[in-house]
Amino acid sequence: MRVGVIGGGAVGLLTAYFLSAQHDVTIYVRRQEQKSVLIQQGVVVEPYVRKKSIKVKCIEDMVEPDIFLICVKSYHLPALLPSLESIRCPILFMQNGMGHIKWIKEAALPSNIGIAVFEHGVRKINDNKVLHTGVGRVRVGAFTEDDLDILHYVSLLHQDVFPFYQEMDWETVLQEKLIANAVINPITAIFQVENGVLLENPHLAWMAKKVCEEVATSLGQPWEKKWEYVKGIIQSTKENRSSMLVDMDHCRKTEVEEILGYLLDRAKEEIPYVHYLYHSIKALERQKRGDVEW
Amino acid sequence: MRVGVIGGGAVGLLTAYFLSAQHDVTIYVRRQEQKSVLIQQGVVVEPYVRKKSIKVKCIEDMVEPDIFLICVKSYHLPALLPSLESIRCPILFMQNGMGHIKWIKEAALPSNIGIAVFEHGVRKINDNKVLHTGVGRVRVGAFTEDDLDILHYVSLLHQDVFPFYQEMDWETVLQEKLIANAVINPITAIFQVENGVLLENPHLAWMAKKVCEEVATSLGQPWEKKWEYVKGIIQSTKENRSSMLVDMDHCRKTEVEEILGYLLDRAKEEIPYVHYLYHSIKALERQKRGDVEW
Repeated sequence: MRVGVIGGGAVGLLTAYFLSAQHDVTIYVRRQEQKSVLIQQGVVVEPYVRKKSIKVKCIEDMVEPDIFLICVKSYHLPALLPSLESIRCPILFMQNGMGHIKWIKEAALPSNIGIAVFEHGVRKINDNKVLHTGVGRVRVGAFTEDDLDILHYVSLLHQDVFPFYQEMDWETVLQEKLIANAVINPITAIFQVENGVLLENPHLAWMAKKVCEEVATSLGQPWEKKWEYVKGIIQSTKENRSSMLVDMDHCRKTEVEEILGYLLDRAKEEIPYVHYLYHSIKALERQKRGDVEW
Repeated sequence: MRVGVIGGGAVGLLTAYFLSAQHDVTIYVRRQEQKSVLIQQGVVVEPYVRKKSIKVKCIEDMVEPDIFLICVKSYHLPALLPSLESIRCPILFMQNGMGHIKWIKEAALPSNIGIAVFEHGVRKINDNKVLHTGVGRVRVGAFTEDDLDILHYVSLLHQDVFPFYQEMDWETVLQEKLIANAVINPITAIFQVENGVLLENPHLAWMAKKVCEEVATSLGQPWEKKWEYVKGIIQSTKENRSSMLVDMDHCRKTEVEEILGYLLDRAKEEIPYVHYLYHSIKALERQKRGDVEW
C-alpha cells in the first residue's frame, strides 16, 4: 500500500520506519534541509541497528497515496488542513491532546477520516534520528459514522512489532491520554524530573493527583479510575523525560496550548491547578526564549 | 542601653551593627564556630566601609540586658522560648510570617512583649558578613494591652539611619508583610528569578495577582488594595533575590512552613494556589536535598 506520512518529527519518523517494512512509504517534510539529511542518511531509530532508506518529499509536492498519516504537531494542523481538502484518500490524524478535533470538524475534509491515539514513547534526536523509548499501540477510531471505512485500513497497517488497533470510542481514549499528558507533561517540565519522580516525591505526587482529579472531573470522567490509569503510565514510563520537558530543554515550543489551553477553553468551571500549570509553562517558555512570545 | 540580640543571621547581624553605634550590644549565637569568627573578624555590613567589634556570647551564656531583640528564624523559636520564660526585661520579636505568634501566645513570657515587622532588605554572606540590600524600617507594636510599655523603647532604639517606628496594630502590618512574602517568595524561588520579573513576565504577574487575591481574601483583607501594596514592594525590590530563592540556592531550609504552611493551617476554605505553591517548594527542597525531609 502507498502510505504518505506527513511530518518528519518523532512520531512521523518512527511510524515511517516501521511501516516501510511492508508498505511503499513517502515522508513529507517542510524543511528542505531535513529532506536532504533524510535522503542522504536514511531514517535511524535507536536502539535498532538497521538504518532505512525511505522516500522523502517536500509537503508542497504532495502526491495522493492510498492513505495519509498526519504526524505533524497539533499546532501545525491549521496551516496544513486546507491542502488536505482536495484529497480523496483516507486520512488518519495522529495528534496529541484534543485541540485538533475542532479544526478537523471545521475543515471540509473527504470521508474516511480516522483519529489515532499514539501510545509509543519516542524522542527526536535530530532530523533523521529518533529514540524509541517505549513500545506502545496506535489506537484508531472512525471520526464519525461516515468514516467507518477507515477501520479496514487498521488491519492493513498492523504489524506485531508496530501494532494498530481498532477503537470504537476514540473520544474516551483521547481524553484518557489527554488526562495523562495534562498531569505528567507540565509537572515534569516545571520540576525538571523524569516521569517516575512524580510518584517518588510525595509533594509532586500530591500535585499529580490534584491535577488528575481536576482534569478528569472537568472532562466528566471518574477521577479515581483515571488516577489509577495515570499512575500506571507514570510507572511504565518512569525513566522517560516527558515531551514537554524535552521541548523545554531544547527551547522548543511546547504543546501547552493543545493540552492545558484546550482544557481551559472547554472548562465551564474554575480549574485553578490547570490554570496555574498553564501559566507556569508559558512563564518558563518566556523566560527561556526571552521577551518574544511564541 | 544594654541590648541583647539573639541570633547571628542576616537580621541579627544587621540590627546589632546599627544599634552598636549607640548601645552596649551583645550578639548571642548558637554555634561556637560563628562566635569565634565574629570575635576575630567583627561584623561587616556591605556596602558600608566600617567593620564593627561587637560582644558575642553563646546562647547558653545569656545575661539579662535592658531589652532582648529576638532575631532567630521563626522555626528556631520553639527551642528558644523556654529559656525566655525566666527573663524580666522587655522582649522584641522580629520574625517573618505569622507562625511565631501562636508560640509566643502559648509561652509563659513576662510582660512587655513587642512584635516587630522588619522591612530592611538584607542577605547573609557568611558568618560575620551581610549585605544591606534595601533600607527599611522596623515597625513595632505591643503584643497585648499589657505590653504597652515596650513602646517606650522604640524611641530609644530609633536612629535616622536605622529607624524604629511605633505601630498600633501589628497584626495588620504583619499580615501585609505575610501577603507580600506569600506572593513574592515562592514564585521567585520556583522560577529562579529576581523579584522584578514577577511584574515583567505577564504569566508570572498573573500568578502573583492570583496568589495575592487568594491570600488577602483568606486573611479577610481587601485584595485589590493589597495587590497595589505588593506591586509596590516588587517594584522597590526588583533587583533583589528573595530570601526563599537564596535559601533554595544554598540548599538551606526555607520559611515555607512559616509563610504558606501558616496560611494553609488557618484557612477555613480551599486555597488552591497557596496549596500548590506550598507543595512546589516542599518538592524542590526534597529534590535539592535528596530523600531526607528537613
